[in-house]
Formats: sequence, C-alpha cells, structure tokens
Amino acid sequence: MSSFEVTPQSMFFAEALPLRSGASIAGYSLAYETYGTLNAERSNAVLVCHALNASHHVAGTYAGQPKSQGWWDNMIGPGKPVDTDRFFVIGVNNLGSCFGSTGPMHVNPETGRVWGADFPVVTVEDWVDAQARLLDALGIDTLAAVMGGSLGGMQALSWTLQYPQRVKHAVVVASAPNLTAENIAFNEVARRAIVTDPDFHGGHFYAHGVLPKRGLRIARMIGHITYLSDDVMNEKFGRQLRDAAASGAAYRYSTQEVEFQIESYLRHQGDKFSEYFDANTYLLITRALDYFDPAREHGGDLSAALKSARAKFLLVSFTTDWRFSPQRSREIVNALLDNRCNVSYAEIDAPHGHDAFLLDDVRYTGVVRSYFERIALEVMS
Amino acid sequence: MSSFEVTPQSMFFAEALPLRSGASIAGYSLAYETYGTLNAERSNAVLVCHALNASHHVAGTYAGQPKSQGWWDNMIGPGKPVDTDRFFVIGVNNLGSCFGSTGPMHVNPETGRVWGADFPVVTVEDWVDAQARLLDALGIDTLAAVMGGSLGGMQALSWTLQYPQRVKHAVVVASAPNLTAENIAFNEVARRAIVTDPDFHGGHFYAHGVLPKRGLRIARMIGHITYLSDDVMNEKFGRQLRDAAASGAAYRYSTQEVEFQIESYLRHQGDKFSEYFDANTYLLITRALDYFDPAREHGGDLSAALKSARAKFLLVSFTTDWRFSPQRSREIVNALLDNRCNVSYAEIDAPHGHDAFLLDDVRYTGVVRSYFERIALEVMS
Repeated sequence: MSSFEVTPQSMFFAEALPLRSGASIAGYSLAYETYGTLNAERSNAVLVCHALNASHHVAGTYAGQPKSQGWWDNMIGPGKPVDTDRFFVIGVNNLGSCFGSTGPMHVNPETGRVWGADFPVVTVEDWVDAQARLLDALGIDTLAAVMGGSLGGMQALSWTLQYPQRVKHAVVVASAPNLTAENIAFNEVARRAIVTDPDFHGGHFYAHGVLPKRGLRIARMIGHITYLSDDVMNEKFGRQLRDAAASGAAYRYSTQEVEFQIESYLRHQGDKFSEYFDANTYLLITRALDYFDPAREHGGDLSAALKSARAKFLLVSFTTDWRFSPQRSREIVNALLDNRCNVSYAEIDAPHGHDAFLLDDVRYTGVVRSYFERIALEVMS
Repeated sequence: MSSFEVTPQSMFFAEALPLRSGASIAGYSLAYETYGTLNAERSNAVLVCHALNASHHVAGTYAGQPKSQGWWDNMIGPGKPVDTDRFFVIGVNNLGSCFGSTGPMHVNPETGRVWGADFPVVTVEDWVDAQARLLDALGIDTLAAVMGGSLGGMQALSWTLQYPQRVKHAVVVASAPNLTAENIAFNEVARRAIVTDPDFHGGHFYAHGVLPKRGLRIARMIGHITYLSDDVMNEKFGRQLRDAAASGAAYRYSTQEVEFQIESYLRHQGDKFSEYFDANTYLLITRALDYFDPAREHGGDLSAALKSARAKFLLVSFTTDWRFSPQRSREIVNALLDNRCNVSYAEIDAPHGHDAFLLDDVRYTGVVRSYFERIALEVMS
C-alpha cells in the first residue's frame, strides 16, 4: 500500500502538570503528529495512544525514509480502516518516553541536570491529562474517538473516565482493566535486569557515558516471549537449529553459542532494542502499566469504576493473547454493560498472541473499518 | 508426618564416561542417597531423577537438621506413596550439578584447574548412562521403577529407551517429549542474564572470587514465573501491595522499590537462589532440557522414537501447568499407545501450575500410591 509523508511536531507546555504521585512536571514538550484534516466543526479528531515502545509516529513515512512507516501504518491512513481522508488523527508521544517528548534523558530545568532516575513516575491518568492539554492547544474539545492497543487501550479507557464529555467513542484493543500478578512479575524481572546492570548507575548512566544494554536486552527478550503465542513461536521457530541447512544435523553442544533459531531471534530483538530504547523510560512505562487499575479506588469493583463513562465502545481481543487475554477484555465489556453503555466486542481468532493487535488480519481490520464508518456517519450527521 | 534420617554418599568412577557431545569425562563422582532396603532378589529398586535445581537428597532429613527434608519427602518415605518400607529408593545428583556430584566448580584432573565454563555439555542421555553405571556399582540390574518430574521425567522416559531391559516401570510426571520454542526461549533469556553478568567472567568467575548473582537472580525470577500458574499467582499475590496493612492505601510511586507483593516474592526467591546455585550448572542443566528430543533422530516421529520402550508407564500431568502442559504428556501417551505399551495416564486438575508435581494433592498422591502398590505386587510375586 502506498504511504504518505508526515512531519513530527512538538508543543511546549510551560504550565506545570500535576501528577498522580503528588509530584508535578513543569516546562515539558510533547512530540506529536497529525494526519488528515480537522473539519470545520472540529468533530473528526481521533487520538491514538501508544503502548510500551511505540511513539507519536503512528502512520505514514518521513521524507526520504521510505522504510520509516509508523507503527500502526497498516491501520491508519488514506483509505485505511481509520481513514485519514475522513478523520483527523493525532499521535502523541507520552511524557517520560524516549522518542521526542520530555523524558528522563532530558535536562530538568529546575536543577540543570539530566533527570535520569529522578524523572517523576507518570501514570496512565497523567498521560491522559497531558494529552488533553495538547488537544486544548490544538483547539479540539471533543474526540470522535480515542484508540489504542495494549497500554494504549488503557489510556483510551481512562480517557472515557477522566474526560467523559470529551470522548464520543473509545476503541480499546488487546487491553485489560489492570495487570495480573503474572504481568507485573514479567515487568519486575525486566526492571531488575535493567536496574542491576552495573552500567545503569542508579539510573544516572548518561553522566557516565554508558548505557545499560545488558539489562535492556534481557528486558526486551522477556517482552518478546510474552508478545507471541506458544503456537506462533512453534510455527515460526519450533526447534529449528540456527543454521537451517544444518537442520537434522548434529547439535553444537554449547551452552553459550546460539543453537536454536528462537535464540537467534530473541538475541537480535534484544540487541536492536538496546540500541535505541532508554532504560529509565522502560522502568517508567512498565510501572505505568503496573499502576493502572481504575477499579482500585472502588474497592476492586470495575463496574463502579466505569460508572462515569459516557462514550460508546469497541473492544477487541485476540484468542491466543496470553498477556492480555480475551477474559480481561470481557471484564471490561461486562462492567460497561453493567453501566448500560453502548459496547461492541470482537474476539478475533488469531494465532499471533498479543502482537496480533499490530498485525493484519482481515477480520480485525474489518471490524475496525466498520466501526469507524459508523463513527464517520455520526460525525457527518 | 515424621521423617527419617538419611546420609548422603558418594561413588567415584575412574573409567571415562563418553558423552553425546563427543567429549568424555574421566574420574568423576556421583553423590547419591538410598532409602529402604534392597531385597534379596534385588528387584525392588526405584531410581528417582531430579529436575533443574534439586539433588540426590530426595527424602528424609539429615541428622541434627530437622528442616532438611528432601525435595520429594512428601512422596517418598516409610508409608508414603513410594513406600520405602517396600522399595529401595535411590536418589542421585546428576553430573554437572552443584550439590555434590562432579560439576563445573570442581577441578578438572587433566588440567589441574577448575572446570568452569569448560565443563562438557551433558545431556539427559549422558545422565542416564551415568546413573546406569551407579546402579551397576550398587549391584542393581533391573529397576522396579524409574521416576521423575519435569526434567526428571525426561530422564525416566530416556531410561526406557536407552536401557529397555533394565526398567519395569517408568513414572513420568509433568514432563514433555521435548521443549517448545517458548520453553527454549525462557531458558535462553535466563542464560543470557547469567552470561552477560560482568561477574560471570566467561564462566571462570571462581578464579575471580565473585559470583554472577545478578544473572542468577534474574534467571530464578523468570523460572518462578513459569513454575506457577496465572491463577495461583492471582490467588496468592494478586495486586496486593507489599505492606498488606497498606492495602487500599496509596501507591509509593516508585520504579525501583518493591510496590507489589509478587515483586517481593520474586526478589526473595532470586536472592536465595543466587546464594547457593552454581551459574555454570544453570547453563548446563537448561541446555540438557533444550537438547532432549528423542524424536529428533527419527525425523520428529515420537512413535518411532519410543519403539524400543518395554516398560509399563504412568504419566501424570497438571491442568494449569503451562510450562509442560498436559498436551505434551498426551503426546507421549499417544506415542506409547502407538507402540502398544502399557500406559496409565492421569491428568490432575490442580491450580498450582508446573509446581504441582512437588505439592500435595490427594488425587495426585493417590494415583502414585496405587501405581506403586501395583508395582509392589509385581515385585513380590
């Protein structure tokens, strides 16, 4: 599919943003991109929220970089399920991330030193507040839709609770009302790998001219295992040896060399990630995942927590996603139904695990396309 | 239940053991324990094979150490499901382990230096060969049963293929005919955490007076996640904060401090493990797991691989075990049935995940007890 050229932008916010932790952050910037045209009624805006390692670069490519497609380019663009010929789509990099918005690698204006591990803990709710300010600055009062997968879906859900009057529709894909103990456990192991890397230097590695790449590699390898299903791993890699030609040939009998294809894949993913991702950002974003739990202030009662939601909802889950299983999406669906919300729910039988939310599947993209056609009809009427 | 006193023993083997890798190991010792009495016919011997971090200390306690119960003390002992009043039970620490048998922390007699990372790669088949030599030395030709859980189950299965005439029964619990890509992936991440710990020193840390504890901690934390089921983790820990009294209270909002109970549990398990487990042993034993694949030499045909089996079998799996799922046990059962073997199979509905094979469950222990009563009848007839 042909792509379209996009340009990243940045907006500076002088006013301090109060955070759920009690801290606040002053003088921060948000990197963002927009696709399509805001209509005269300002009624066709769609905000796309990103997950752990993505950014504001949701769709399109950068000039002269034909391979720089945004992370949801298969879903968003001219003629695509979220059609930028009809919708004005906004992607924004979250506070604390490492792709352009203010984050731990930047200088804290109050101290003149790089934030590092002192960057304040940010939550899903804080991100939504920051996104709302960006919309204010862009002159957008009401969103036709807020949309996200995984951690992005948590932000979409939180939008409907924090700003119920500003959201017409929420599209929550492969998400959950909170993390399970197992989810937290995987995050914690990844964090410990980073924090105990001697090159982490208590989160102030920037001053030492090193990066805690060992820890980041381990974190990413763990992540990748949880993004894929057991089935797709067996199908893609199985017990294949690294050298495909040597399949059926003798083992190397080594504990440290790559023997199996899956090892090669994971090491490669870990190496790539450690080159570009910020270690403090990893800690912050996994912690935002851990902390998200709208039911918490309601004694664990999710139905009570979702009482303020006024949006219409599309929930999508994938059968082989064991990180954010369909059951977790159904919890949200049921709690919304308890509140007589307008909810559509699609459980897609896809083999790809959690990763499925980023991949092409005709049933999945078909559901999203239909839903946005319905939104378009509402917006234009 | 009252326990009984046991004493570890050691046997030295001067003759070199040829290994599957093509290497061999000369002048090694095996640590072992025995419980009960070998009958005059030498027909009541039961060999128990251990998994990743266990040892020859299967049952009983050491003198003056009332809390030193063996790792399968609930299953094996006087009057227990594997009744040492009837059976002569042998536990043996595998080559390359770190609990008494020759391993990477010992001196290679050929070089006069500690083996470290140069300890040869050992396989399940090599361990079985070493165990067979121990039985030779003990004057035991035929086993009433060979028994093990997880990696121990792989050894039990391999016994029936390598020494079909020497095994009457094999009890294979929570095991698999080989590792899936996901299993290998978890092993690989754990190994990378160890190998990239700067204190690993290429596997020769002994000479540096340090231990790669950071890597071992991460490895153990990953392991623990895979031993438990999502259900039991949610039940035991859920989203409880560390300070139970503070449950419902405010979050700490910290990326590095312990916030959730599950984090505290995992860190504690990691810390404990890093104090006693050898890093090179971890690499060796996870690699033995990766390599085990009796169907490999038969083009992936497990039925063909199990053709030489002559033993009778009891297979047991646990419904919530996602590390070695019931499906994997059923593959073995079906391949044995293809060969018209005598197979009993119990799928136990237990919430504890892979760990269930070490825990008390009346249905599980009942099945094992009945099976060994049947073996006892055969042995005594």
